[in-house]
Amino acid sequence: MSDAQTAPPATRAMAGIVGAGQLARMTLQSAIALDVSVRLLADRADDGAAKIWRDVLVGAPNDLDAVRSLAARCDVVTFDHELVPHAILTTLEAEGFVLRPSAATLALAQDKQKQRESHAALGLPVPPFQISHDPNAVPAFAKVHGWPVVAKLARGGYDGRGVWVLRHEQDVADFAAEIAGRDTPLVLEPFISIEQELAILVARRPNGEQAVYPLVETVQNDGINREIIAPARVNPELAAEATEIAHRVADAADITGIMAVELFATGGKLLINEIATRPHNSGHYTMEGAVTSQFEQHLRAIRDLPLGDTRLNAPQVVTVNILGPADGSDPVRQLPEALAVPGAHIHFYGKGARPGRKLGHVTTLGDNLDETRNRAWRAATLLTGEERPF
Amino acid sequence: MSDAQTAPPATRAMAGIVGAGQLARMTLQSAIALDVSVRLLADRADDGAAKIWRDVLVGAPNDLDAVRSLAARCDVVTFDHELVPHAILTTLEAEGFVLRPSAATLALAQDKQKQRESHAALGLPVPPFQISHDPNAVPAFAKVHGWPVVAKLARGGYDGRGVWVLRHEQDVADFAAEIAGRDTPLVLEPFISIEQELAILVARRPNGEQAVYPLVETVQNDGINREIIAPARVNPELAAEATEIAHRVADAADITGIMAVELFATGGKLLINEIATRPHNSGHYTMEGAVTSQFEQHLRAIRDLPLGDTRLNAPQVVTVNILGPADGSDPVRQLPEALAVPGAHIHFYGKGARPGRKLGHVTTLGDNLDETRNRAWRAATLLTGEERPF
Repeated sequence: MSDAQTAPPATRAMAGIVGAGQLARMTLQSAIALDVSVRLLADRADDGAAKIWRDVLVGAPNDLDAVRSLAARCDVVTFDHELVPHAILTTLEAEGFVLRPSAATLALAQDKQKQRESHAALGLPVPPFQISHDPNAVPAFAKVHGWPVVAKLARGGYDGRGVWVLRHEQDVADFAAEIAGRDTPLVLEPFISIEQELAILVARRPNGEQAVYPLVETVQNDGINREIIAPARVNPELAAEATEIAHRVADAADITGIMAVELFATGGKLLINEIATRPHNSGHYTMEGAVTSQFEQHLRAIRDLPLGDTRLNAPQVVTVNILGPADGSDPVRQLPEALAVPGAHIHFYGKGARPGRKLGHVTTLGDNLDETRNRAWRAATLLTGEERPF
Repeated sequence: MSDAQTAPPATRAMAGIVGAGQLARMTLQSAIALDVSVRLLADRADDGAAKIWRDVLVGAPNDLDAVRSLAARCDVVTFDHELVPHAILTTLEAEGFVLRPSAATLALAQDKQKQRESHAALGLPVPPFQISHDPNAVPAFAKVHGWPVVAKLARGGYDGRGVWVLRHEQDVADFAAEIAGRDTPLVLEPFISIEQELAILVARRPNGEQAVYPLVETVQNDGINREIIAPARVNPELAAEATEIAHRVADAADITGIMAVELFATGGKLLINEIATRPHNSGHYTMEGAVTSQFEQHLRAIRDLPLGDTRLNAPQVVTVNILGPADGSDPVRQLPEALAVPGAHIHFYGKGARPGRKLGHVTTLGDNLDETRNRAWRAATLLTGEERPF
């Protein structure tokens, strides 16, 4: 008897994933079913996906040698996050490695300026915006569009970081001081009165074949996405417009893989907020709630396999994110209570509990939205011990 | 950069699985979602579950030291198969290790004599049977019940092995020669004219709480299960009787975990065929076809968590087993063709292709049985290149 250390034979196609967080972890569940071989590059050996998986390299996503070492042992490389520097991506492509999505697609996801400019050039609906390297351009922008002004770093911001809401001219000096020395342009936009935040997933194969999921609502609290409601409560015309936007954005990004397009509804119209060129939190509902999970769909796309059916499995699907409770306790300990909620599909990400950290999610399916939401929230509040925020 | 070899910390509850075949592999998919820690004891490092999983010991299921080494590193041990000798199970329980199912439950699964005797004693429907150590008892049995006689080894037979159909008295001498020296009694039964083969899953917690799944049909060809149809096409009274049998059999087995009860329908009545005290091929349909997959349900039961909803996700669910083609080719290579079938949920077990070997399965959901079957079979025949047998 011995510990098993035998490496799997390299006789088959191997997909590499840079990053070993929850997106990689949930991708593994689909990889097991399809018997798609996957090798991970984990920042740390105890990352959520790394600690369960056999085939793991450990190395940083900003270390060219580490990422190249993964690429050299795979026939296609994909990504759990946007943290690989662009120079590494272009170097690897120049060396002949296949990245899906490509360096060019990932550059778009990493750059809010490029997104706005490319979508505006295509006539897609984006907020009014101005690119500037100078924070002192804000007052002039406000003269045209009014206060507040939303200022975003074009590159390097994610998950709500790198975004400032400037309420009046007096905020500009502090803002200028805060971003001094940042080597990235600013995207200035008016503060939009948002009626609904929405998201739509689209998968695309190398040949351009696409599959779009239903439009969903992403319900925020304190700027954090707490809940997904599928399908979105919008009129059919808006849903059809979102589908069309998703198709065009995916083609514009020339993506191979799955992507999410985040949208605002304002004044009965849609505006593109931003894109993510990977499986997305707003798509976790697909694991039980759609015929094909976004993780299987991503694998199908990057392995150039036929895309799966994107329809919902029930009239109503709701996902509630599990955030680390304020007292630092681990929601996993409340699993016995939460599993007693009928039809609560609970997913944990294998991450250490920290206040506010996304640790898992709960999905429920049903015929009635209120009842379906109530069940998801009941399980979620049993897990966290915290009250439903809305 | 280095290969990740860090063992996970032993700070949490750990479930051990003896065996690393497809049942363990599919259990891992559910373990990832619930963040239930699992350690495997694999016969070989390249077994289907072992080659993907980080936490694997390698050792034989009939090696006391190997099984004990797993048990010593887990707080509960469960099983992927019935291959652990009874003496090892009882030794480990005497040493204080927690086996779920227990040695006594597993003994029942390993012993057709015990099954028949315990079920008959409870008044459960079993075929007429006689226990004998002497093959020459067959003609006398045939005098009462007629030819053919079915003779089964009470212990050591599985997957159709250890069963003989004796058509007339002249078969007995050959049969006696074939089993000479086997140290196990025979179970003699009349040859039953089977109208339908059926199966039903039931999960049971340590406190006796149970959850029963719908009755399903197991469609055989050449003695091999090819297809599962859920729900079974039977009248409601028969389905209700099957549910009641499942409850009573689970209690009689005093099982902790999931089990399958295989049944025959004959003359409009049910007879118990045999039981399996683990996730079962007839339950693979639950992965997409029921609210709670049998693998998650098994984990819930052995971890003493609330059992999940067992209802179907669609009016019709069909699973077709993927058997290795006669030419030895690997069906995985046909994945691109098969994934083009709408709503075909394909599962591969990571096993080497050999003719007739169970390598995976396909599940489809729908409203119409013929259409749902046709889609499952279309994907299956695309994978194997072999014609639908019925």
